[in-house]
Amino acid sequence: MMLEPSHLAFVPFVSVQNMMRLVHHVGAEQFLTELATYIEADFKRWPEFDKTPRVASHSREGVIELMPTADAENYGFKYVNGHPANMRRGYQTVTAFGVLSSVANGYPILLTEMTVLTALRTAATSALVGRYLAPKGAQVMAMIGCGAQCEFQALAFRAICGINRLRLWDIDARAMEKARTNLQAVGFDVVVCASGHDAIEGAQIITTCTADKQYATVLTDNMVGAGVHINAIGGDCPGKTELHSDILRRADIFVEYPEQTRIEGEIQALDPDHPVTELWRVMRGEAPGRTDPRQITLFDSVGFAIEDFSALRYVHAKVEGTDFAEPLDMLADPDDPRDLFGMLQRAK
Amino acid sequence: MMLEPSHLAFVPFVSVQNMMRLVHHVGAEQFLTELATYIEADFKRWPEFDKTPRVASHSREGVIELMPTADAENYGFKYVNGHPANMRRGYQTVTAFGVLSSVANGYPILLTEMTVLTALRTAATSALVGRYLAPKGAQVMAMIGCGAQCEFQALAFRAICGINRLRLWDIDARAMEKARTNLQAVGFDVVVCASGHDAIEGAQIITTCTADKQYATVLTDNMVGAGVHINAIGGDCPGKTELHSDILRRADIFVEYPEQTRIEGEIQALDPDHPVTELWRVMRGEAPGRTDPRQITLFDSVGFAIEDFSALRYVHAKVEGTDFAEPLDMLADPDDPRDLFGMLQRAK
Repeated sequence: MMLEPSHLAFVPFVSVQNMMRLVHHVGAEQFLTELATYIEADFKRWPEFDKTPRVASHSREGVIELMPTADAENYGFKYVNGHPANMRRGYQTVTAFGVLSSVANGYPILLTEMTVLTALRTAATSALVGRYLAPKGAQVMAMIGCGAQCEFQALAFRAICGINRLRLWDIDARAMEKARTNLQAVGFDVVVCASGHDAIEGAQIITTCTADKQYATVLTDNMVGAGVHINAIGGDCPGKTELHSDILRRADIFVEYPEQTRIEGEIQALDPDHPVTELWRVMRGEAPGRTDPRQITLFDSVGFAIEDFSALRYVHAKVEGTDFAEPLDMLADPDDPRDLFGMLQRAK
Repeated sequence: MMLEPSHLAFVPFVSVQNMMRLVHHVGAEQFLTELATYIEADFKRWPEFDKTPRVASHSREGVIELMPTADAENYGFKYVNGHPANMRRGYQTVTAFGVLSSVANGYPILLTEMTVLTALRTAATSALVGRYLAPKGAQVMAMIGCGAQCEFQALAFRAICGINRLRLWDIDARAMEKARTNLQAVGFDVVVCASGHDAIEGAQIITTCTADKQYATVLTDNMVGAGVHINAIGGDCPGKTELHSDILRRADIFVEYPEQTRIEGEIQALDPDHPVTELWRVMRGEAPGRTDPRQITLFDSVGFAIEDFSALRYVHAKVEGTDFAEPLDMLADPDDPRDLFGMLQRAK
């Protein structure tokens, strides 16, 4: 008995297999919709959070980041890497896991894979923002970049914004073919395009989601006409952008957390005081979103810790008391909290 | 087969039970000695590390911290909380876990409990520093504060500095009795004292290790004579100190990482430019340690990420290929790294 850890010692763990089971149990589009309601609820109480730009460790090969945030009740963080060269070596560009804890006692209450969950929360955030900013009656989305995030974006924009027509482009024909196959299999009307220029023809929403860790221009100024919403996912670390700066200057720019976006987002190409609108203000009705059908709106997405916090809260609520989580013996729990050494000695 | 995650998806996990098994398998004092050699090796290559003060989230009840660092090969971080009121509620004041990753691809290669491991690394660091700074021929250690860290400190000072005589004091008689019982059981010569003043009588090393999150004075100036080494463990967050500032002014102060210690350590009570010596310089022979038998040396310990990194490296080396680690399905690993969505769909 002495050696059996108490329930305090166990942290519920959601493995990749269980996350995938959970997504299918809920239904992927329902999952994205519910997740978006958690994200929206947390954006609407933005000032309640303890916020800090993520802590990044850069190397030649990529970046490893910790993304913490907290409200009065919970603390959450995500570990996430970004290694553009991984794909060519058979590894994921992005892998992630996260932890949700109780602020009151500091104990973790959830450890979960977040590679799949990050793909879902990034897509849910984009589509949620799209619901606020895309032109009314938008029906067609261009997708520049057909990597791991592509299908999740499409699914979220269908679940949350009703978009079912997609125009794909990627410099890698196999990536484009993979996306086409996956997206047609779940009922999308998909057109594979001959260039980025071709892809954005007739699209009211343009999603850019490429992975190279460098300044790349996947959209040039002359490609983008009036009355579109640009959902820029790929520019998400210092030195990595996707859009020509002239587009930025014609657009109204919306961001998650300016302190982080100015370092990592598309707007690193602009003056540090270039005006941007914080999305939480739009969601609270304190700042305008789209005001004109001919306006170019741009969501300069870099991903912020509060979105992961929302995802952790959502998954925690979903798995509590189910077999989607398994108990992990991660915390020492001596009978007498002062007697950690006694616990160690009794384990002999 | 399609649903079986590949080896890339699995992260070796060391549970609390397995950490305790490992410690006894190696032998606690041998473990502390080996761990100290890892810490010393990493201190000696200090400039190679990517260093940052830990990222703390403070609340009324306590603090939750992330402590990352990296060298060219590995990235490591620890999650650790500090909640002084936990003990009274049956929880640990400090719990922790940590991750070691490959810088090359960002993938975690170890997830481990660190509640037990932190107790060991903190003690190993203290004793390692004691070996550099304690007066020659030191035989007696006073221990002010008999909480969870107490016995680990004693064991490390015996393994690394040859100290076998202890003088204990704690305001809580039960804590003192717990420490006495545990320490006598492993062969220490223990004297339970009537006050802090009594405890330091005849001691060449004074370890202060109390847990209250407030400015407390466990050592006043008149208590401390010449020719001692003070190992100050408990002052480790803003607003939490243990020593009267007059002692600090009489002592030569040694620290891990000044940027962090000035915020969290005893020296937060001093001017921001009060001279301190970085321990890595002492270990490299670039700065003097103890130069006079009558000198008061003070290790203002707050705990730095590199010590956790050393501990993660050590545990990783010890558990590789053994059953002290179990594989955890924490990373998604699609056959085609771009096809995360396809992996999710095939799991249906």
